[in-house]
Amino acid sequence: MNRPERRFLAEIHEQPAALESLLAHLDEIQVAGRACAERAPSLLRLVGHGSSDAAASYGVYLFGLVVGWTALRDSISLSVYYGADVDFSSSVVVALSQSGRTPDVVSYVERARKRGAFTIGVTNDADSDLAHAAELTLPLYAGEERAVAASKTLLNTFAVLALLAGCAAGRGDEVAAAVQEVAEQMRKALPGLEDAVVPIATTFAYVGRMYVTGRGIELGTAREIALKLTETCRIAAESVTSTDLSHGPIAAVDAMFPVWTIASRDECLPALVAAADLARKKGATLVASGSAADEIPGAEFRLPVPEAPLPVLSPLLSVVPGQLFAAALSRAKGLDADQPVGLTKVTLAQ
Amino acid sequence: MNRPERRFLAEIHEQPAALESLLAHLDEIQVAGRACAERAPSLLRLVGHGSSDAAASYGVYLFGLVVGWTALRDSISLSVYYGADVDFSSSVVVALSQSGRTPDVVSYVERARKRGAFTIGVTNDADSDLAHAAELTLPLYAGEERAVAASKTLLNTFAVLALLAGCAAGRGDEVAAAVQEVAEQMRKALPGLEDAVVPIATTFAYVGRMYVTGRGIELGTAREIALKLTETCRIAAESVTSTDLSHGPIAAVDAMFPVWTIASRDECLPALVAAADLARKKGATLVASGSAADEIPGAEFRLPVPEAPLPVLSPLLSVVPGQLFAAALSRAKGLDADQPVGLTKVTLAQ
Repeated sequence: MNRPERRFLAEIHEQPAALESLLAHLDEIQVAGRACAERAPSLLRLVGHGSSDAAASYGVYLFGLVVGWTALRDSISLSVYYGADVDFSSSVVVALSQSGRTPDVVSYVERARKRGAFTIGVTNDADSDLAHAAELTLPLYAGEERAVAASKTLLNTFAVLALLAGCAAGRGDEVAAAVQEVAEQMRKALPGLEDAVVPIATTFAYVGRMYVTGRGIELGTAREIALKLTETCRIAAESVTSTDLSHGPIAAVDAMFPVWTIASRDECLPALVAAADLARKKGATLVASGSAADEIPGAEFRLPVPEAPLPVLSPLLSVVPGQLFAAALSRAKGLDADQPVGLTKVTLAQ
Repeated sequence: MNRPERRFLAEIHEQPAALESLLAHLDEIQVAGRACAERAPSLLRLVGHGSSDAAASYGVYLFGLVVGWTALRDSISLSVYYGADVDFSSSVVVALSQSGRTPDVVSYVERARKRGAFTIGVTNDADSDLAHAAELTLPLYAGEERAVAASKTLLNTFAVLALLAGCAAGRGDEVAAAVQEVAEQMRKALPGLEDAVVPIATTFAYVGRMYVTGRGIELGTAREIALKLTETCRIAAESVTSTDLSHGPIAAVDAMFPVWTIASRDECLPALVAAADLARKKGATLVASGSAADEIPGAEFRLPVPEAPLPVLSPLLSVVPGQLFAAALSRAKGLDADQPVGLTKVTLAQ
């Protein structure tokens, strides 16, 4: 095997620039946001697999908080496999696929569009199947992503959703200015965070399983970090809301089962502190990241990030420590995050 | 510690009788189903934590397939913690809590009801906070459940949702007759399944992590079995749709990372076979359960269940091998499924 080129790590560092490339095309998102608002959808349906599905979790909170719309991570199998008679007529569909080639996502969009949904494809390939299937395409403008493990395409998917929600609510310029500020905060924070994850990666070299917990706006972040650790570090990392963690899985937690908490300074913080407290009492090593990392008592490792200028944008910053940790741990374990065994960049899985 | 009484196992065996107790109150579900249908909801919102949330996953498919309604596992934090301005006016809410005392589920129902939703509480305690908060209560009639690990309350929650969907579609009697048949199938299958899980439990005594995969109608079953294994056997068992498994987490699978597939004979079976095939090629031990257990090539262990008289009722039978396996494995590991360390029957977690 050739020496790893560390594309994954390089692409994590390209993220502030990727955000700025996207912001240069704000006008396209403005058009889409206005088109959504005109339809006053009764429902916004988000679909995607893997990292895109983690972004969809974030979207549920974005559209709920910023626009007051009910958004859901829709079932793909219900319409694509079972052919259920779903009423799409007053729905907006936002389909997420960095490659634009995920077969059942494309099929879902074709079907939803035929049945009257307004369909938007969010993809890094403006000439992909998804782009052709959807009525409107929002390219990610993340540049080519060569590592199999997604970083900048995931971040720009987060950003497209935040900007789209902002534009739909008539607050596009405000959100865009905040995303620009986030890009600058990220650029400044990256070197320090890259150093800070190293001792955790050393400690975690033999960890086989862990929980990644967040709630509300950070649930998507928890899902993305858990997936990244699973794919690149072969850890059984499971995401779980802090309330669900306290509700059952806490029974499995012990000194060999660390818990990573993503704590932002918002209304869900008390639920996170409570879950972290239970985990700590069971002997689990705690990692606390996010803007409120300092508020998790007893955390052994802390990876604080700056507070985003708008609270709903927190995930754009809080995902970064998890990405850097995955890159460092996969290196510590002698794995290749650029090309995890058994994965390909474009998933054509059924 | 006293000798375990094995309530969990006893309660698994009480499930056919629990279904029949519920069926004796079909008239109550008929009333609820008609009330839902009259409202012609644009959205059915399901909420619950833990096993109840697994049942909510099943509900998404039930209401989609049987009634043609869009149902979603709604975010509790969006309205309860963030106070988002959600439009509940044309929604039906079905809130699931066996104890009826989960604080944020009760708060969610109070808020949704005030804002115009038609609210139904599904609970095993007809005098609980949830029963008082909801406009209409559907008791589970499962009898007292003493083990902390839920079995018959989960099964009856599955059944209430199936019957409610059937009644809303004007097919209540047909679904009820099918549930009665399922109770009889389960009664006959239980002894053989209880024997069949023993060799798997012996083999899995040192398993630290596994995936439980299903898709579509069996996704809720996969979530419930994974949760049960985590709670009672302290395995890091994660549920994942078969497509998502192929899409990323497969990278972590190896000979020490078994995969449990829940295969029913339906439209999602090809996606399941494909994921199982990938897992087998990576050396994972495969367990295949469900009515199509025999169709998973290369499975080392098979736990087939009878085919349900209606395909949408498959989960009522396919959850049973997972419950029995959890009981057997927790016993093999010297754990107490009736009282997992750190859990209480009523979760008052934030």
